[in-house]
Amino acid sequence: MNRQELVSIIRERKSFLCVGLDTDTRKLPAHLQSSPTGVVDFNKAIVDATAPYCVAYKPNLAFYECMGVKGWAILEETIAYIRKNYPNHFIIADAKRGDIGNTSAMYARSFFEDLDVDALTVAPYMGEDSVTPFLGYEGKWVILLALTSNKGSHDFQLTDDAAGERLFEKVIRKSQEWAGDDKMMYVVGATQGKMFEDIRRVAPTSFLLVPGIGAQGGSLEEVCKYGMTKDCGLLVNSSRAIIYASNGTDFAEAAAREAKKVQEQMAAQLANI
Amino acid sequence: MNRQELVSIIRERKSFLCVGLDTDTRKLPAHLQSSPTGVVDFNKAIVDATAPYCVAYKPNLAFYECMGVKGWAILEETIAYIRKNYPNHFIIADAKRGDIGNTSAMYARSFFEDLDVDALTVAPYMGEDSVTPFLGYEGKWVILLALTSNKGSHDFQLTDDAAGERLFEKVIRKSQEWAGDDKMMYVVGATQGKMFEDIRRVAPTSFLLVPGIGAQGGSLEEVCKYGMTKDCGLLVNSSRAIIYASNGTDFAEAAAREAKKVQEQMAAQLANI
Repeated sequence: MNRQELVSIIRERKSFLCVGLDTDTRKLPAHLQSSPTGVVDFNKAIVDATAPYCVAYKPNLAFYECMGVKGWAILEETIAYIRKNYPNHFIIADAKRGDIGNTSAMYARSFFEDLDVDALTVAPYMGEDSVTPFLGYEGKWVILLALTSNKGSHDFQLTDDAAGERLFEKVIRKSQEWAGDDKMMYVVGATQGKMFEDIRRVAPTSFLLVPGIGAQGGSLEEVCKYGMTKDCGLLVNSSRAIIYASNGTDFAEAAAREAKKVQEQMAAQLANI
Repeated sequence: MNRQELVSIIRERKSFLCVGLDTDTRKLPAHLQSSPTGVVDFNKAIVDATAPYCVAYKPNLAFYECMGVKGWAILEETIAYIRKNYPNHFIIADAKRGDIGNTSAMYARSFFEDLDVDALTVAPYMGEDSVTPFLGYEGKWVILLALTSNKGSHDFQLTDDAAGERLFEKVIRKSQEWAGDDKMMYVVGATQGKMFEDIRRVAPTSFLLVPGIGAQGGSLEEVCKYGMTKDCGLLVNSSRAIIYASNGTDFAEAAAREAKKVQEQMAAQLANI
């Protein structure tokens, strides 16, 4: 999905919500726990229920890898289901990959050709040649970790370099030499709302993928106040607050209700641009 | 495998070679290309042939993930094969993972409990709480990316901070507050031989996993000169130069020959400590 298409589904659906499919087998509703297709059924029901209110889905690979072969099959089936039934939704593989060039090229094939997701999260530590193999695909995106939502983000990302530039700013500035705002987004945690001003100074037009709303405590208003652009420029992710809104048989309706609530707040924010 | 056991197999086998199982289906010998069990058969033959000359195996996850469900099954079978037949070999999953705490905890379960590898490579960008979930397992190791062997390592890893410390040095120094040299190793690329002096200043006793020997051009002598400790302190990886030494039916013998050649050089280096 290219940038224009992404902006257009955001405007049509009045939403920039990304639903995180971090499906933990231990948190499935009781009636799905014992089913061999429990996770897939859960994912499909969540997708069906939330599709009108969101523009993107983001499975986090860890939650599938921990089930081994079975987990990889569930991931493939979930992505194929979204692709087939909701072709106007953006799919992000939250994998945080990044390796030497020939290895990143293998990951790129795996995620962009075989799984056919729209975007992949990538860790920047190994620099340019670990990222560029992901950039050769039409309509596919790299979402580079910049300023994450966890406490550990303070350990290295906020370190000032000798020129007074913080590491996350350097990552954003430097990576814009590798690709423009039609191919590269950045992960910026919502837990650091005021930081969006600084981010917009180095990345005025890039899309930002924003985790940390909901369970992690970030505020949507603050993110929009400091981070929204005239094209929206935001994909705000919520995982646990939506997919585990209820752990009864009504989990899908509860997820829809939560997603709708966020979507309505987003519609109000989009009315400002 | 704990540190004492690792040092002891290095001394017994007179080797600190790690064989990288970066098995690319497109590079298999012709007679295995068409076999449905080609990759597993290749891996098993390589392991059988090289086991006397090495102390560790390192499958790079990208090469398995790119085959989807089948690839994950091959990875599991390869690791189980090594565990069963070569219990005194150290197994590293080269995955370069790292995510927020609850997600890193999922990865830790996946790699240390289910796959049962000895060590996992982890990317440091997200800081302490992305790494600590991997540290709670007896006899299991984190191998943190510090100074990688690729060109892009210059983009961020070598940046001086305001206090004159380079990012890779800060990663090493800071991470030693999270775990000692019995739980944490560092990836340091062999292509930057002289840098081992600087590394040893911040990590005098830690084991270093050293890629970049062979296809990437690093020199074993230089790595040992600047990086070796009285406990050896090095695991030097070679992938392509060994596993693709021949692409005929003699690929396993050729791999054994190459591994033996490296082992003999290593034995000479170990005689110095």
